[in-house]
Amino acid sequence: MNTQTHTAPALLHRFAARMDHVQPSAIRELFRYGADPRVMSFGGGYPDASLFPLEAFSTAYQAAIEQHGPLALQYIGTVGVYRLREQIAARMCADGVPCTAEDVLILHGAQQGLDLVARMLIDKGDVLLCESPTFLGGLIAFNPYEPRYCGIPMDDDGMDMDALEHMLALHPEAKLLYTVPDFQNPSGVTLSLERRLRLMELARRHDLIILEDSPYRDLRFEGETLPTLKSLDPDGRVIFLGSFSKILAPGLRLGWAVASPELLDKLALLKLAADSQCSTLNMVAISLMLETFDLETHINTIRDTYRDKKALMLHTIREHFPASVHYTNPSGGLFTWLTFPEGFDSARFMLEYALPEAKVAYVPGATFFPIEVRRNHARLSYSSAPSQMITDGMTALGKLLQQHLG
Amino acid sequence: MNTQTHTAPALLHRFAARMDHVQPSAIRELFRYGADPRVMSFGGGYPDASLFPLEAFSTAYQAAIEQHGPLALQYIGTVGVYRLREQIAARMCADGVPCTAEDVLILHGAQQGLDLVARMLIDKGDVLLCESPTFLGGLIAFNPYEPRYCGIPMDDDGMDMDALEHMLALHPEAKLLYTVPDFQNPSGVTLSLERRLRLMELARRHDLIILEDSPYRDLRFEGETLPTLKSLDPDGRVIFLGSFSKILAPGLRLGWAVASPELLDKLALLKLAADSQCSTLNMVAISLMLETFDLETHINTIRDTYRDKKALMLHTIREHFPASVHYTNPSGGLFTWLTFPEGFDSARFMLEYALPEAKVAYVPGATFFPIEVRRNHARLSYSSAPSQMITDGMTALGKLLQQHLG
Repeated sequence: MNTQTHTAPALLHRFAARMDHVQPSAIRELFRYGADPRVMSFGGGYPDASLFPLEAFSTAYQAAIEQHGPLALQYIGTVGVYRLREQIAARMCADGVPCTAEDVLILHGAQQGLDLVARMLIDKGDVLLCESPTFLGGLIAFNPYEPRYCGIPMDDDGMDMDALEHMLALHPEAKLLYTVPDFQNPSGVTLSLERRLRLMELARRHDLIILEDSPYRDLRFEGETLPTLKSLDPDGRVIFLGSFSKILAPGLRLGWAVASPELLDKLALLKLAADSQCSTLNMVAISLMLETFDLETHINTIRDTYRDKKALMLHTIREHFPASVHYTNPSGGLFTWLTFPEGFDSARFMLEYALPEAKVAYVPGATFFPIEVRRNHARLSYSSAPSQMITDGMTALGKLLQQHLG
Repeated sequence: MNTQTHTAPALLHRFAARMDHVQPSAIRELFRYGADPRVMSFGGGYPDASLFPLEAFSTAYQAAIEQHGPLALQYIGTVGVYRLREQIAARMCADGVPCTAEDVLILHGAQQGLDLVARMLIDKGDVLLCESPTFLGGLIAFNPYEPRYCGIPMDDDGMDMDALEHMLALHPEAKLLYTVPDFQNPSGVTLSLERRLRLMELARRHDLIILEDSPYRDLRFEGETLPTLKSLDPDGRVIFLGSFSKILAPGLRLGWAVASPELLDKLALLKLAADSQCSTLNMVAISLMLETFDLETHINTIRDTYRDKKALMLHTIREHFPASVHYTNPSGGLFTWLTFPEGFDSARFMLEYALPEAKVAYVPGATFFPIEVRRNHARLSYSSAPSQMITDGMTALGKLLQQHLG
């Protein structure tokens, strides 16, 4: 601001301390790298924008304004457009979660669900159980409420249930567990059926609420679909979060929560306080679009694309990376997760070598650990990079790694 | 949910207590009355939907998708679309607030600004100075942070500065003041120039941060525009909130904050945690719309409409209401504020007489008082009712009031 570059320091000291837990994120850092057109970025968790059904969106927004007139742009109740809630409920039912429109709260992206659930359930110092590593957007949403994180280690079948049981014995006061069971961000791994059943059993025994965040669920390109935790939940202890970001487009900012009435009512009140409601126009347009657009065929196209891109990325990694670098083999979603030898610092390697010499960006793994940070990991996304960039980028990164680790 | 109607009580008792401060609001109650087509509602704070520029919206969404392609639907940085921030900064500059795009944070409606500022600045038990009565959406946003409200009485020139000075002497620890200086919701009154200057002087002396919430500012239909508090703020102690809800349409959910860099950066981090970003498509479309659509002419049309509606409402009130009912005479915005004789309960009167006998709804005034609730007030909105409904509703309400107060 031209005439007022500084806030009076006397004002600022008053609340500087309470902002310490809100940290600039690695994702914001990556936006900067993204500005350099020479950099091949595998960092962002972006869906492939070339798949966005632009014509269908264009038609839907026209139709929303033509058919609904001014009501498409007026205020509406906090819980969202009823027809869209019905359509979401129908998809949830088809996925094994019996529910109706009344059980659905439309959110400004699933990210808002993370914030509202944290606001409802986390007091400063409360134990929060989560995967380690976990979704960075989750950490960003939860940090302001200052939970005490208990990170549960993972393997190729997801969260380690023995470790969880051990942690629950150490922390019997724990009441909330956060998980991304399908094609987890950042690891790409999926919680096995056996562990899903055991997780629900542990939740019952320890009276936990489970926050099931599953934005990638529809993007399974291999293997059999596993039941949601919500579908294994007779007690109403699971809050399910879904999203249109990865199956339609993230710029709509439309996600949803499905939960038992007592929890959903509270979330709706918190949403009323936070931002009144989602964009009426976006809700009306997407609801109309779902009446005519073949979403299931579109999802199949996305699945085919990501299956091919994952295969290409893993093929190139196998061919060019040193054998000492481990990678996960996701059955869906956007990410694979690298494990370098102990002592390797992936952030430092990116800044000193990968970016300047190979023009390759990834997300250093350290940023995804709630506690006990490990520096020898990296998240790679194959979703938005063109095939040639995947080949070029992984080849260049592999050669560089051979020099340093080979 | 068919198979899971109840959450385990053992879970619920754990957080029931902390939800006590989140109350269902009178605004939600009014949505119910709104469902009865016979009711003439003057309750909602809705803009006149018949004025929404539907064709321009339709063109803008088409253009956003055609011109920006998939980027119009992809993720973008938290602070919002740069061009839209420039356009907002240009409007703020023209209104006497020198600023650039960097000083603007796009919000999911100004309501989100209330939440984020409260999150940044209010700890449980902190004093929050505000007008009494004050904006209900403000109370809804602030309540979860459990401030100690200090309501400052108002007259036809806005907040009483002697009362504020007295309150500041009683509460020297106060650090945040919330105000709607232009055509306040619910009272319709505007803070005079003299009081604006005195408020800034008091803020300086007591080192207050001021949250200036001005969604109706452009809707002045009489008298001279007064400077924003932000324009009288060399210290960077004012956070200004603006909105497209009343000058374009609320269903877009687009508002903004202008503040000093230190405060704005913190708000952006809190927005990142709360919901990542506003809808890219909505931001791109409105930005394109502002390039060609004549917003100032459109605002003049809204002003003309509301001036006429206000005149009609006040004329009918003068003609039919008992002289013992006082009303404010707004110079802009959507509301007039009724004061009934002491002892009159406007909520009870509405439920027992106004709704069943006159089919008239308003918002009982009690809901707008942060503390020391007064029951002998009501908020009437003239913005969205057609002229005939204003005449019919005010005539019927007046006759009923004559019976009970005449």
